[in-house]
Amino acid sequence: MLALYFDGSPKLKDFPRPEPGPGEALLRVHLAGVCGSDLQVLKGYHGFRGVMGHEFVGTVAGPEGSSWLGRRVVGEINVSCGGCDLCRRGLTRHCRQRRVLGLRDHDGAFAGFFTLPEANLHLVPPEVPDEAAVFTEPLAAALHVLDAASISPGAEVLVVGDGPLGLLISWILARHGSAVHLAGHHPDNLKQAEPYGVAVFLDKDLPVGDYEVVIEASGSPGGLDLALARLRPRGVLVLKSTYAGSFPLETARVVVPEVTLVGSRCGSFPPALRLLGRGWMDPRPLISGVLPLSRGLEAVEWAQRPGVLKVLLDCRNAG
Amino acid sequence: MLALYFDGSPKLKDFPRPEPGPGEALLRVHLAGVCGSDLQVLKGYHGFRGVMGHEFVGTVAGPEGSSWLGRRVVGEINVSCGGCDLCRRGLTRHCRQRRVLGLRDHDGAFAGFFTLPEANLHLVPPEVPDEAAVFTEPLAAALHVLDAASISPGAEVLVVGDGPLGLLISWILARHGSAVHLAGHHPDNLKQAEPYGVAVFLDKDLPVGDYEVVIEASGSPGGLDLALARLRPRGVLVLKSTYAGSFPLETARVVVPEVTLVGSRCGSFPPALRLLGRGWMDPRPLISGVLPLSRGLEAVEWAQRPGVLKVLLDCRNAG
Repeated sequence: MLALYFDGSPKLKDFPRPEPGPGEALLRVHLAGVCGSDLQVLKGYHGFRGVMGHEFVGTVAGPEGSSWLGRRVVGEINVSCGGCDLCRRGLTRHCRQRRVLGLRDHDGAFAGFFTLPEANLHLVPPEVPDEAAVFTEPLAAALHVLDAASISPGAEVLVVGDGPLGLLISWILARHGSAVHLAGHHPDNLKQAEPYGVAVFLDKDLPVGDYEVVIEASGSPGGLDLALARLRPRGVLVLKSTYAGSFPLETARVVVPEVTLVGSRCGSFPPALRLLGRGWMDPRPLISGVLPLSRGLEAVEWAQRPGVLKVLLDCRNAG
Repeated sequence: MLALYFDGSPKLKDFPRPEPGPGEALLRVHLAGVCGSDLQVLKGYHGFRGVMGHEFVGTVAGPEGSSWLGRRVVGEINVSCGGCDLCRRGLTRHCRQRRVLGLRDHDGAFAGFFTLPEANLHLVPPEVPDEAAVFTEPLAAALHVLDAASISPGAEVLVVGDGPLGLLISWILARHGSAVHLAGHHPDNLKQAEPYGVAVFLDKDLPVGDYEVVIEASGSPGGLDLALARLRPRGVLVLKSTYAGSFPLETARVVVPEVTLVGSRCGSFPPALRLLGRGWMDPRPLISGVLPLSRGLEAVEWAQRPGVLKVLLDCRNAG
């Protein structure tokens, strides 16, 4: 089977089809999405070596006898041990021995096939097309901002970053009832938030004032600086994205206004699947394009261009 | 009257006794404490110019006819407008036009006399000696960690920093029922926490493991680095102290473990006065020494030496 592999540089290679271990399913990939984290892998940021990719929708192709066989699924990306102190407290996404699909010690989904524990799988409702289901993971991550902070529907919220994650978060918070401002650099991307009632601005045109909740989803030091600058005293800043290198944080910017910074990573799949299944959120306008896995190197190049939203890999002929 | 004034360098100068404005009291200072923020003023950090000092206990000496006249008081240090959006939301300590005693646009308490709005004053119970009452402000700031984060009495807590603030916080959290570890650099300071059941360690000897709550009270980049390193996934880090310059924050240290950083400044005086009045907390062992205000320059020098805890200024003969 074909797979997009990273070993210091990205390569398309032929691999043998993987064998599922105990408790694991073999998955045949339909579509996979290129995410900001994948672009960080390409920069060597996560120290990851292996098959890339963690956003996918596919069909269970093995093992024989599995109750999941033939089902169309998406899958949670953190593979946990179940036995460490954090797993026992229910924090399985923070497992001390955590492996992460396509990001940490676990081959990913930019391939014809890959394996994942059956415990990680979620059935995709038949009414959700593959092109929407492949957004389950980023939509779950976006919904997870509501776990990170108690965001009142009455809150004035700023979302920084007009990539797919920032757009999904702005949609969700607007649906939640909040007055949402979205700041970004790309007029065409910003337009994607307008149908949801989000007020959109180029960073430099953001109106004067501060916000009780700010979500940083730009993954850039400039975005974090803007987020801190526009955070109201006692406000909450949710950090959704990381970047290589460090941000020069003046501690007075946190202590004096008594603001809260909270990190948020991944999210729970069932609420994302409910929103997709009920048709309340259709992420397909975020698709910039679809390429076959055989053009995977071109796809990850494309995904890095300014203003490009979601690039999908069609892996159906990569088996 | 004598006052310790900062105009780029600290100076002892004679000033006319100030006149209280509308709603203000004239205060005769008994004792004033030198705090880490005062040492930052000396470094030019707050951009403050004026009479220094914000920790005090004194007697109301004016105006004639005030119902406070002759009362022994302490006073909250933030002077708010009462009219801005934040004041109207009850966030008066975050008033947009905030002035702060001895720290921002308001002359302070290292003087024979100073003025403060009567609304800021709190009566000192007669059973609390001046040497304990002068700790009301730092004790209030220490208690305020319980507002910043929901700290379970069952929590495992690390306090970083063995200065007066770190010690007071460790006492409070231990009294609260938590298992408290205190990390610092000064064996003699650390000993001050042992009577409260706090387990104390030199930074380098801290046992392996992580904590669900960490309080950073060292005011040093090394302390913040340690605090982040020992914070459990989904844990809460309360930042109690600032320092000049910036900390190189890798955002992945916040996002990946989904930790919360929350700033905490100042605090409410009534709970601190209740603890002092009931004799449940006696901060007097934290006094490194008392000097008359006439030796104020020596006192602020002394307060900067490693391991020195609280230096008090006796202002009773400075009128």
